[in-house]
Amino acid sequence: MADARGQVTTTIAPEADGRVILRQGTFPTSVAVGEGLLPRLALITGLDSPPFIVADEITGPLFADFLGRRRGLFNLPRGEGAKSLDSLSAIYTSLAAAGVDRSGPVVALGGGVVGDTAGLAAATWMRGVPLIQCPTTLLAQVDSAIGGKTAVNLPEGKNLVGAFHPAQWVLSDVECLRSQSDEDFRQGLAEAVKYGLGEEWSFFDWLEENARSALRRSLPVLGTLVAECSRMKLAVCAEDERETGGVRARLNLGHTVGHALEAASGYRWRHGDGVAAGMMVASRLSLRRGLLREEDFSRLDRLLTTLRIPHRVDMAWEEIAPFVARDKKFRSGAPLMVLPRSDERCALLSVSLDELREACAESAGGKL
Amino acid sequence: MADARGQVTTTIAPEADGRVILRQGTFPTSVAVGEGLLPRLALITGLDSPPFIVADEITGPLFADFLGRRRGLFNLPRGEGAKSLDSLSAIYTSLAAAGVDRSGPVVALGGGVVGDTAGLAAATWMRGVPLIQCPTTLLAQVDSAIGGKTAVNLPEGKNLVGAFHPAQWVLSDVECLRSQSDEDFRQGLAEAVKYGLGEEWSFFDWLEENARSALRRSLPVLGTLVAECSRMKLAVCAEDERETGGVRARLNLGHTVGHALEAASGYRWRHGDGVAAGMMVASRLSLRRGLLREEDFSRLDRLLTTLRIPHRVDMAWEEIAPFVARDKKFRSGAPLMVLPRSDERCALLSVSLDELREACAESAGGKL
Repeated sequence: MADARGQVTTTIAPEADGRVILRQGTFPTSVAVGEGLLPRLALITGLDSPPFIVADEITGPLFADFLGRRRGLFNLPRGEGAKSLDSLSAIYTSLAAAGVDRSGPVVALGGGVVGDTAGLAAATWMRGVPLIQCPTTLLAQVDSAIGGKTAVNLPEGKNLVGAFHPAQWVLSDVECLRSQSDEDFRQGLAEAVKYGLGEEWSFFDWLEENARSALRRSLPVLGTLVAECSRMKLAVCAEDERETGGVRARLNLGHTVGHALEAASGYRWRHGDGVAAGMMVASRLSLRRGLLREEDFSRLDRLLTTLRIPHRVDMAWEEIAPFVARDKKFRSGAPLMVLPRSDERCALLSVSLDELREACAESAGGKL
Repeated sequence: MADARGQVTTTIAPEADGRVILRQGTFPTSVAVGEGLLPRLALITGLDSPPFIVADEITGPLFADFLGRRRGLFNLPRGEGAKSLDSLSAIYTSLAAAGVDRSGPVVALGGGVVGDTAGLAAATWMRGVPLIQCPTTLLAQVDSAIGGKTAVNLPEGKNLVGAFHPAQWVLSDVECLRSQSDEDFRQGLAEAVKYGLGEEWSFFDWLEENARSALRRSLPVLGTLVAECSRMKLAVCAEDERETGGVRARLNLGHTVGHALEAASGYRWRHGDGVAAGMMVASRLSLRRGLLREEDFSRLDRLLTTLRIPHRVDMAWEEIAPFVARDKKFRSGAPLMVLPRSDERCALLSVSLDELREACAESAGGKL
C-alpha cells in the first residue's frame, strides 16, 4: 500500500494462491497471511520434522489437526493465568517426554497467552529451538505474534520473565478469526486502528472504507488488514530488534492510559479497549498542541464508534493516576507518551501530569 | 603466549596492577584475571548501579561483602541439585522484591552451578539484563563462566532449559581459588590440561613446567593459567558464538567418555576427573591412528599423574556404553569424538564403537 504522506513502505509478495509473504531486512521472521494456511504449514515453512504444538483448551481441539503430523500437543488452560512459570514447567516436561531436540520446532497455536508462553518455552528449550507462531486471534495476528517478545507473568507483575526469540515463521490464517467472539475480535481491531493513527494515515483511510466489511469478518478484507498491520509491525521491529533504539516505543500509542485502565479496573477493561481509550486521550493531547487536526480527532472517534470499540475513559483520574505512574516510560517525573500527528507518524513526547489529567477528565466527560 | 606449532593467538593486555584484560573480536565478554579483583568490581566493570548478587551458601558468606554495595543477595544451596527450575523461580521472586529493572546487573558469584543458574535468571529477567560472572572455582574460571551458556536441569536431563547469554564481564579473581578443596580444584586442572592437549601444545609445555606451582596454588602461576585458558576459550567461543559452527565442539575433548563415566557411576566420577580419563581414551585412539606420538601420549599420562588427577577408566565397557550412546554427537551410528594430534590442534572425527570399546578396555587395563 502506498502511503500518501510519505512514510517508508515495504514490499509485499503475493503468491498465486492469494497468500501474502512478508519479510523485512535482516529481521529473522517471515510472515504469511491468507486463508486456509494451517493445512499448508509444512509446505509454506519447509518443515523437515513434525512440530511440537502448544495450544489451549479451545484452539487445540479446534485447529491442531489441520497442522498435520506432530510430535506432541500441549493444551494450556485459557486465560492470562496460564502465562505462568507453572505452565512453562509443564510444557518442558511434555517436550522432554516427546523427545524434542535442538531441531524443534515448536508451534504456538493460539492467542497472545499461548504465543508468549510457548515462545518462551521455545526460547529456552535446549537454549533455543525454532519457533513457528500460528496466531488464531486478530490481536495476536496484528501484534503479539510478530516481534520476538515472549514472556510469562509472576505474581509480582506481568511479563517479568521472558526472552527475545523471533519466530522463524508467523502463519496468520484469517479463517481462524471466524471463531472469535465479538469482544475478543474487537481487541484486535483496536490495535489495527493504532497502526492507522500512529504509522500510516493511508491505512487509516482504508480502515474507514472497510470498517463494516472487517466487522462482518470478510476474509479478503481481514487478509488485507492483517497483512498491512504485519508489514508495519515488521518494519518497526526490524529497525529496533531488541527494543533498545526507542523505535518500538511508537507501538505504545494509547498504551500508557490503556495499561492504567486495565490495571486500575482489575482487568474489567480489556487490552484493545484500553488502547482505544488511550488513543483518544493521546489524540486530545495532540489536538491541544496543534499536532492533530480537529477533523482527524473526530475521524478517530467515529471509526472507533463504527467498530464498536469502547473508547471513553470511565474512571476518575485518582483511580488511574497510580497506575500511570507505574508505567516505565517516565523522564524526570513526566510521562513520555506517544502522540499522533496529522501530517506524519506519531512521536514520543514528554507530557506533564497536569496535561494528562485534564485530557483524561475531558475524555471521561465525553466531550467531543 | 606464542604457540610453537602455529596456532592462532590473541592479544592479552596486562594492566599496571598485574591484572590482565582479555577481549576477542565481537564476542561481547571482557575477561579480567588477577589477584584481588572482587573489591575492584565496580572500578573494573564501570558499574553504575549496585548489582544483585546470586551466590551459594559458601561463596555468599565468604566473598559477597568484597563486592561492595549491592541491591540484594540470594544464596543458592550447594550442589548440582540447585540447578533447578525451583531455584530459578526463587531468584525471580528475590529480583522482584529487590526491584531489579532492565539495567540489572546480576552478578553470579560461585562455581558452575551458580553461574549457570544465575546466568539463566539474568538471561530471562525482563527479557535479559546485564550479567557479570565472578567465578570462584578453577573449573568455572577456565571454562563455564566464559561462552554464554546458561542452563538449569530437569528431572529428565541436564541443561535441558537454558539460554545463550554471554556475561558483559567475567572477573576471575584467583585468590578465591585458595579456598577450594583439593578435589574441587583438580577438576579445573583437568580442563586446563585439555586446552594444552587440544588447543596449544605450547600451553601443555607450560603446564608441565608449572604443574607443581599450580598444585601449591601459587597465585602468579594460577593467574597465568587462568588467563591462558580464558584466552583460548574466548577465541573458540568468538568463532562459534551459539555453538552452531562446530568449532566449539573442539572443547568437548575428553567429554564423550567423561560424561559417560559421570552418568554411569551415578556421579561418583566427577567432571574434571571424567574428562581426564576421557582424554586418555581419546589419546589412545589418536595413538592407534598415528595422529599422536607415543611420546606425547606418555607426557599426558605423566602430567595427569603429577597433577593427581584420576585418569584410568575403572568401569566395564558394558556399564559405560549405554551412556556413550546417549551422547548427542553421533553421525550415522558412530560417535563423533574429538581426537588430539601431536602436530596441530585436535579435530572432530568419526570413531567406530568397536575402536572406542577397545580403547576403553586398554585404559581400564592400565596399559599405557
